[in-house]
Amino acid sequence: MEYAASSEDAIAISSCRRIVPVILAGGSGTRLWPMSREQFPKQLIGVIGHDSLLQATVARMSGFKGDFDIDAQPIIVCGEEHRFTTEQQVRLCGVGATIIVEPARRDTAPALTLAALAIIADDDDAIMVAMPSDHSIADVHALHDAIAIAAGYAQRGMIVTLGVAPTRPDTGFGYIRIGEALDHGAHMIERFVEKPAAELAAQYVAAQRYWWNSGIFIVRASVWLDALRQLNGEMHAACTAALKEGKSDGHLIRPCPNQFARVPSDSIDYTVMEHIGGADAPCKGVVVQLAAGWSDLGSWDAVWEAMEKDTLGNVASGRVVFEGATSSYARSEGGRLVACVGTANIVVIDTDDAVLVADRSHAQDIKRLVARIREEHAPEAETHRKVRRPWGYFDSIEHGARYQVKRIVVEPGGRLSLQLHHHRAEHWVVVRGTALVTRGDDQFLLSENESTFIPLGVRHRLENPGKVQLEIIEVQSGAYLGEDDIVRLDDCYGRS
Amino acid sequence: MEYAASSEDAIAISSCRRIVPVILAGGSGTRLWPMSREQFPKQLIGVIGHDSLLQATVARMSGFKGDFDIDAQPIIVCGEEHRFTTEQQVRLCGVGATIIVEPARRDTAPALTLAALAIIADDDDAIMVAMPSDHSIADVHALHDAIAIAAGYAQRGMIVTLGVAPTRPDTGFGYIRIGEALDHGAHMIERFVEKPAAELAAQYVAAQRYWWNSGIFIVRASVWLDALRQLNGEMHAACTAALKEGKSDGHLIRPCPNQFARVPSDSIDYTVMEHIGGADAPCKGVVVQLAAGWSDLGSWDAVWEAMEKDTLGNVASGRVVFEGATSSYARSEGGRLVACVGTANIVVIDTDDAVLVADRSHAQDIKRLVARIREEHAPEAETHRKVRRPWGYFDSIEHGARYQVKRIVVEPGGRLSLQLHHHRAEHWVVVRGTALVTRGDDQFLLSENESTFIPLGVRHRLENPGKVQLEIIEVQSGAYLGEDDIVRLDDCYGRS
Repeated sequence: MEYAASSEDAIAISSCRRIVPVILAGGSGTRLWPMSREQFPKQLIGVIGHDSLLQATVARMSGFKGDFDIDAQPIIVCGEEHRFTTEQQVRLCGVGATIIVEPARRDTAPALTLAALAIIADDDDAIMVAMPSDHSIADVHALHDAIAIAAGYAQRGMIVTLGVAPTRPDTGFGYIRIGEALDHGAHMIERFVEKPAAELAAQYVAAQRYWWNSGIFIVRASVWLDALRQLNGEMHAACTAALKEGKSDGHLIRPCPNQFARVPSDSIDYTVMEHIGGADAPCKGVVVQLAAGWSDLGSWDAVWEAMEKDTLGNVASGRVVFEGATSSYARSEGGRLVACVGTANIVVIDTDDAVLVADRSHAQDIKRLVARIREEHAPEAETHRKVRRPWGYFDSIEHGARYQVKRIVVEPGGRLSLQLHHHRAEHWVVVRGTALVTRGDDQFLLSENESTFIPLGVRHRLENPGKVQLEIIEVQSGAYLGEDDIVRLDDCYGRS
Repeated sequence: MEYAASSEDAIAISSCRRIVPVILAGGSGTRLWPMSREQFPKQLIGVIGHDSLLQATVARMSGFKGDFDIDAQPIIVCGEEHRFTTEQQVRLCGVGATIIVEPARRDTAPALTLAALAIIADDDDAIMVAMPSDHSIADVHALHDAIAIAAGYAQRGMIVTLGVAPTRPDTGFGYIRIGEALDHGAHMIERFVEKPAAELAAQYVAAQRYWWNSGIFIVRASVWLDALRQLNGEMHAACTAALKEGKSDGHLIRPCPNQFARVPSDSIDYTVMEHIGGADAPCKGVVVQLAAGWSDLGSWDAVWEAMEKDTLGNVASGRVVFEGATSSYARSEGGRLVACVGTANIVVIDTDDAVLVADRSHAQDIKRLVARIREEHAPEAETHRKVRRPWGYFDSIEHGARYQVKRIVVEPGGRLSLQLHHHRAEHWVVVRGTALVTRGDDQFLLSENESTFIPLGVRHRLENPGKVQLEIIEVQSGAYLGEDDIVRLDDCYGRS
């Protein structure tokens, strides 16, 4: 049947035909450790292919055709600690974006609420296509088709989700019990079910009445806000206040940290979706089938599943040699040679400072592993050896008792803060590009194969005035070499 | 029965009661790749514990008590490419040694022959205890007891080998069929059998008449030489000529390379041991049982077997985390964090430039793996990232398109060659100790946190005049950075 808004529906059918992609990029998951870390999570990494998952998500809506106008400029909601990298990656995609920076982590419902409020503030009531930033979708056309169908229902005031017909009794997903059949293969949502135990999951798959929840939602901004106001007025109010008292320059929206601190943390599923099946629900829910090679890449096993394999089921990335290995996945990220001999169903992820070897069937236990590493205060739980900064990055390539060696890469136009250190002196050798160096009251240029020395206590700044990357080798020398021995006197990225 | 030399024995019972340990350290095996590499093989590595296997072998005979006098100064036979490290390691043991440097690889029979000839040249006919340098023995007292028994038979003109009662049908060992029982649990050797197929190995173990060949031989120098002359006169003659025309300063013996090139390559087993069971054999063979926790550490599986395990059968070395792993062995050599999740029977060996992940049951396939890596000309087959030199070592910690960063450690008194480079300039930053730098016609000292620049084409030398290690960070810059861009003008280690 064609679903018609019933007389009980408080929300009128909108005439708005505008779609705004909303990319939820606040995750900091570590299930893909050691590539994904708290400070550089999964969505910022090229898990499959060269582009990061975030970049692939940004690109995913381009080429969308249909009865709706799609906004070329997505809204991206991300955490403060990932803001610079998120901006950089989106810039490299060649598209503009509105970036909402969450001052704290509050899960997906507040993130979507901030996006909806920003849309409504523009006197608009567009259809939001809310997408996690860290999934993989093989068939973009099939995704577009599903979204076009979903947008039709969303326009009529439904909350629509995309569901995936299950191929195995996976316990890592939420399930949706499908109800009354609608046009275009859509169904009313009977209810949302949280991640089930193995036995229940098997029953769900056998029953053929349950789909996986893909985490992609299509809903009008006003519909979401109305539903939320009824179901969690506190979240609605706190998000509204945080945005009202926050800052915005049109492209970068910064909710007020104090107000946002009051926002309760919760997911879209818990806050709204689990309540829309009931008789007194604030709105109706529809699920549209997504058959597009979707994966949430929620574990290294899922990544292996999503990738192209050789005849023995192996997947190699980087400098990898397999000898008698089967159904294994090896990835060399740091340039080292990774050799797998006689392994079966094994994942090997080699990074600069940590290597993971896991049985694929235990890939879900990595969360527990990372928790243990964090308890032991090992830095590998949270940071990479290579640390991104607004101006570029540095890589700590060697350290000894009283020295440390860093490779520092500064992007064209990049400018480190004017700073000084109380406990260390620094030797800089330029190995690529040109550096503009401030040292005390002097300023001078250094080009390839030139060096300088920054004594302890002397204020200094490193800049790249050129058009190509600047790369220097820095040898630090001193009794204490922590990142916190830095006095920032001036910083163009607002960090001083 | 007490074995009495029969009237047929051409060799008289010697009155010599002197034992000389002969350590065969010419191996370059790669079965323990990536820790063991052609240029830095297994015996030079601390596979079990801190000391290298060579050092453990040198220390093994100390404390020997009995009717025989043991020579505190062993004879070590090693290859030219491992000479400096062998010398350094032996020096650290605090014992003197006679080192015979083989100009080329010729397997174990020529190595033992060189040692025997050197002993005879001293107008002596000592009992040699020939030991591979890369085995592990848990119970040194049991070894001493076995050697004391063996020396008694050796004194009477027998070639004695130590045999190990097999605990599994291993196909990686040679087997000895034991004959007539002698005193002290010894047996006449009926015959030597090469590494058998699995089925045959199982029969051997079931028959209880076969022991593993440990590779430890006890034989008088004159007995060995007489047997060899009869069985392989060519080897005997060529070794004799190589030693005669070689150089010696008493502690370092260098056979003549041209003569040694003529020596046929063969093992002790093939050349002599497989011929001593017969009626017309040049001498008799005896096997003495060794029950001392012996292992040839011939594979990572064997290493795991030889090491102490936790309750789940895991062995960790360095920064390792196990989560749900069983019967696994993980080793972090480069300081990286190695995490094993849900692995069973897996070996992980992480080094600076290569990581091996192997199923323990496929540990023997590593030989094939290394052969493949070598075919692909990957340097990881032969060299480590850290390269040993007579003066210390260097570690290539980073490289880019036109630069390379090395950490250079110079031992006290160490002196690099006076050299120049045609294609690269070098920046040196001292991070520990004091350097004496020669640059062009100048000579000056640099201490911690000081630096200098060596322009392209300028002759230079780095020395450590101090009492502690000197450590510098070298940044090389230039279009070509190969190790072969070096003109050595003077070298105190004879390399110019």
